[in-house]
Amino acid sequence: MAKILIIGGGGMVGQKLAHSLAADPFHAGDEVTLFDMAFPAEGGAPAAQKLPGNITDKGAIRRLAAGRPDLIFHLAAIVSGEAETDFDLGWNVNMMAFRDLLEALRAEVVSSAHAYKPRIVFTSSIAVFGAPFPEKIDDTFFQAPQTSYGAQKAVCELMLSDYIRKGFFDGMSIRLPTICVRPGKPNKAASGFFSGIIREPLNGVEAILPVSRDVRHWHASPRSAVGFLRHAATLDTTLLNARPALNMPGVSCTVEEQIEALREVAGNDAVALIREEPDEAIRAIVKNWPRDFAPERALALGFHAEDSFRQIIETYIADDLKR
Amino acid sequence: MAKILIIGGGGMVGQKLAHSLAADPFHAGDEVTLFDMAFPAEGGAPAAQKLPGNITDKGAIRRLAAGRPDLIFHLAAIVSGEAETDFDLGWNVNMMAFRDLLEALRAEVVSSAHAYKPRIVFTSSIAVFGAPFPEKIDDTFFQAPQTSYGAQKAVCELMLSDYIRKGFFDGMSIRLPTICVRPGKPNKAASGFFSGIIREPLNGVEAILPVSRDVRHWHASPRSAVGFLRHAATLDTTLLNARPALNMPGVSCTVEEQIEALREVAGNDAVALIREEPDEAIRAIVKNWPRDFAPERALALGFHAEDSFRQIIETYIADDLKR
Repeated sequence: MAKILIIGGGGMVGQKLAHSLAADPFHAGDEVTLFDMAFPAEGGAPAAQKLPGNITDKGAIRRLAAGRPDLIFHLAAIVSGEAETDFDLGWNVNMMAFRDLLEALRAEVVSSAHAYKPRIVFTSSIAVFGAPFPEKIDDTFFQAPQTSYGAQKAVCELMLSDYIRKGFFDGMSIRLPTICVRPGKPNKAASGFFSGIIREPLNGVEAILPVSRDVRHWHASPRSAVGFLRHAATLDTTLLNARPALNMPGVSCTVEEQIEALREVAGNDAVALIREEPDEAIRAIVKNWPRDFAPERALALGFHAEDSFRQIIETYIADDLKR
Repeated sequence: MAKILIIGGGGMVGQKLAHSLAADPFHAGDEVTLFDMAFPAEGGAPAAQKLPGNITDKGAIRRLAAGRPDLIFHLAAIVSGEAETDFDLGWNVNMMAFRDLLEALRAEVVSSAHAYKPRIVFTSSIAVFGAPFPEKIDDTFFQAPQTSYGAQKAVCELMLSDYIRKGFFDGMSIRLPTICVRPGKPNKAASGFFSGIIREPLNGVEAILPVSRDVRHWHASPRSAVGFLRHAATLDTTLLNARPALNMPGVSCTVEEQIEALREVAGNDAVALIREEPDEAIRAIVKNWPRDFAPERALALGFHAEDSFRQIIETYIADDLKR
């Protein structure tokens, strides 16, 4: 029996991950703990424990570590838009709280005389990269983020990699593409519209498009995100060759191509619900975002995403669209 | 009149930097403060203030920030070998104390309503890179350090870059080559032998060579290091295009080429003082170090180093060799 801890387990991806683990006979005997500030009021994923709390609470973090989870998924974060407007909040939650978690877990590892060695899967982001970019970003392109969120994620990767290198933990960082189509309500991420322009029309609601249609970006579905996390949880990490931060696969397409995929799946009436309303603040953030990747290492290690944006829409319809 | 603060001002490069500023008529009216744990007992560089203290002392850091220095050179660090053996010390001094410094300075910037905006020149290192490497490391090669020291430097760069991007500070990070030939006694850096095999023979003393002669590495003299720092202090930072961490120029050569340069300058008797004594711990660290760079951005921005290792030896003889 393994103890699995999902930090950020109340969020969209955390909940889907918990559902995925609960549905897997291989994990039938495992004890899954979710930690987050809030959980869905109803219909939430099953878990042995749902602990409400804040990752900036050092006492709470020490108690989580004292439970000696075998596997920790770290998904909690202040999203990009909010980290950009609230500098302190972003650095405190996205970086300092993660350092406190690493230190609390390391204390358990050391006090166990290294009998305890958890695996940590850290969800990073393609926001660790900043413009200008090559046509496709390869696996050795440098981290020069142009947002606080991206800088915080890059810092966490570097910290985790060093703790792993020193033998305190096993694990890796996975750099998620923009996750699309997110179900539910918009969040504060500047990337929210990439989901909105698909989700709202499929639900018969008007959607705002704040950027021009030629914006190209890198996407994967929530189902793929869960697949990345679960693959990272069982991967033979010696194959990472001491470079445990990895660009995940995804689909590169323009907003125009997203819209045409929506037209194929749901017709002109759906597309007519997209209203263009330029937002300079969002444009300014998005223009510094990656457009395309050559994630060769991740593909060679067996990570996989959708092959087309149409597949991403179909995944949303299958997994999340209420009918 | 400018207020200049050198953190790590008691160290080898800090002292040479202070000497250089004191000798420059352009800086005649400036007030130079040195902060360090210790200063040379005699013959130290002139300065308006020499403040003994530890950068992990938050009170001391706040007092330094309250002085509102216009220009801060940050050179203080636990060196690579020691950061590798003392994990806590390395992260606390090399990363956390730097964050505390940034936060203390940001508090001054904010309380001045941004009338105060210091320039910070952070000395980083080529240790931010980890093997395997391309033949020459270019300006967009990724940070995947294989030492705690390198990870800490990479984290500091990312933090500083974000504070700069948000407009709190001006400044940049400069990634120094291995500084060679260091005068004086060996320090705890794993790179110490690169200086030792030149310095000791020139002083008539036996030197230990712990690695094989085909090891290739990247060097610049202390005089060049001071030149980099002073150029970074006055550079038009808009030219950095929001990528304020830069690989510095240097000389790429093998240990064999170093030894042959020593033979040219000082003859066979000097070379005969080098004794090979393999050290597996040092070999293991050094094999993950960069060998060569294409520092195009730094060269285009006017940073320059020596053209040959022979010049590096001659710089040592001119600047530091006691006769």
